[in-house]
Amino acid sequence: MARMRVGLLGASGETGGSILNGLLEDGGFDIVAFSRPSSINRPANLALKDKGVELREMDLAKDSQDQLVAALKRIDVLLSAIGAPAQLDQIPLVTAAKTAGVKRFVPCGYIPVIPAGGVHLLRDQKEEVYNHMKRLGLPYTIIDCGWWYQVSTPRLPSGKIDNVIMMEPPIANKGEQPSALTDLRDVGRYVARVIKDDRTLNKQVLVYNEMWSQSQVWDKLEEVSGEKLTRNYVSQEQLEGKLADAKKVLESDPSSFMNLLHMIETQYLISWGCRGDNTPEYAKYLGYITSEELYPDFKYVKFEEYVNDLVAGKIDEFYVEMKEQLKAMLPMKP
Amino acid sequence: MARMRVGLLGASGETGGSILNGLLEDGGFDIVAFSRPSSINRPANLALKDKGVELREMDLAKDSQDQLVAALKRIDVLLSAIGAPAQLDQIPLVTAAKTAGVKRFVPCGYIPVIPAGGVHLLRDQKEEVYNHMKRLGLPYTIIDCGWWYQVSTPRLPSGKIDNVIMMEPPIANKGEQPSALTDLRDVGRYVARVIKDDRTLNKQVLVYNEMWSQSQVWDKLEEVSGEKLTRNYVSQEQLEGKLADAKKVLESDPSSFMNLLHMIETQYLISWGCRGDNTPEYAKYLGYITSEELYPDFKYVKFEEYVNDLVAGKIDEFYVEMKEQLKAMLPMKP
Repeated sequence: MARMRVGLLGASGETGGSILNGLLEDGGFDIVAFSRPSSINRPANLALKDKGVELREMDLAKDSQDQLVAALKRIDVLLSAIGAPAQLDQIPLVTAAKTAGVKRFVPCGYIPVIPAGGVHLLRDQKEEVYNHMKRLGLPYTIIDCGWWYQVSTPRLPSGKIDNVIMMEPPIANKGEQPSALTDLRDVGRYVARVIKDDRTLNKQVLVYNEMWSQSQVWDKLEEVSGEKLTRNYVSQEQLEGKLADAKKVLESDPSSFMNLLHMIETQYLISWGCRGDNTPEYAKYLGYITSEELYPDFKYVKFEEYVNDLVAGKIDEFYVEMKEQLKAMLPMKP
Repeated sequence: MARMRVGLLGASGETGGSILNGLLEDGGFDIVAFSRPSSINRPANLALKDKGVELREMDLAKDSQDQLVAALKRIDVLLSAIGAPAQLDQIPLVTAAKTAGVKRFVPCGYIPVIPAGGVHLLRDQKEEVYNHMKRLGLPYTIIDCGWWYQVSTPRLPSGKIDNVIMMEPPIANKGEQPSALTDLRDVGRYVARVIKDDRTLNKQVLVYNEMWSQSQVWDKLEEVSGEKLTRNYVSQEQLEGKLADAKKVLESDPSSFMNLLHMIETQYLISWGCRGDNTPEYAKYLGYITSEELYPDFKYVKFEEYVNDLVAGKIDEFYVEMKEQLKAMLPMKP
């Protein structure tokens, strides 16, 4: 059997980077990374070539359908991990993937479990993409991954982990809602399993490691670090007030990425912290298959290991290019 | 085990009537029929009482949440088969069903397989209801039933079956697209099976009998009747022109039921006749389980039997109350 040729959009992002690592670690794929023509000669892209990754030019915002179809030639599985504000750019990509005969499209999911229809802006934009994909009958797998370990803890008062975690997220209600957490580094390793698996074709999959409430996360970080953490509780009512404000601000300047971040972060916190959407039980109700059902043998990073490594300074920083923007963010205010 | 108490909205409609018959034939349910206070003493409703059906008052357009919740007291399974223009009236019903602790809600599906997002107005209104239901986590089963035998044949030139079929529907493209057909009388018998079945909880189910293209339907009716039928072919392009016109007319008077019918009938024909949505293969792609997978032993009415009975004058007329409206309809013009 020929090796599966996998195309990846967004390899330079956090999720796309994890996916690329997962595919490389697996070793069983011919990998094609798509890059805008203007970025194709960046050092990070050239480094990919050294790892045997084929680079192809693609610009979703500019390319014609013919160009997109040509770029997708002989791609078996197409993985999209594009930036949060660019979700709808996938519409022409989906059309081209259908024409090009892509055997499985994995749209940009990679968020916690959230129902469609007004709970979360990003989720609803993704739904538009999913609906387009389903209208065309394009074979697909939607992969969501819960909430990353990497954004679930607050900073330490000592500043000891500020190189990685600068934020002090609020705690929703009393912080008792368990939520599905996943190490960002495991996401790509799950993806490598999912795309080889016939059971996941035309299905939604939730990949996640462990269930933790915010209170448990704060307790664990206190225990491991020996520091006393700030606990900034915020009620669902307060969050909904914040959300109403964030919506108005976004309407006043929809082009502002910061305005978008304010809104979607608040919606995330309401969804997984208050509504309690991000659980395997609700995922199954919504039709997902979960990683624990599919891959009981999967060796993931335990949250406790992650916290140990975090406090020991062994975790790489992430969202490096967005750091200045994140610093200014609410409710994830540093 | 206590008998399952099933509540039904729309028992006086075609789909609701079939469901009621299916539940009664099964014999294993305590049945509650909901009726508007103004209709509760109609002879048809009083006849239901004689069959052991409990009548309860409900008015979706007027009742408060408290009234709806009270009306749903001790209902285990709630079946909605309300009129085409009233789909969004189910939103407060869903909220009340969640509060009342309904164990399974079967929203008003009962259409052919159609994807969400712009292909069909009714389908998209149903999607709004489904999304609300899923946001609340209400246990559900969505049941679609393909296209009825009863609306799939044209009238006979002799006028012999005009008491049942007055319409001469156009044939989409060359009439070669197979579509899932179901005898309306079987719908309720399927529903009685589905709602007792744990495998269908929180799932979409397509119940259907046989696959027939329009050409095959016309051929069969010619063969059985010995008459030569009109074949009025219409291309997808022509149908899309009709649809654009119908949209404009509906926008000019959205309250007109006739305007709505013109639009949705054209959308149906494009969906099952041109796009080819109404097949078990596409249904499975969209996540449905099909009746042939669930109930291989189900004894349904064969399409050939239906046509024999139709030509022999043994099929009851349907949509009796809408007959005058249907006569004026396009593309189902009599």
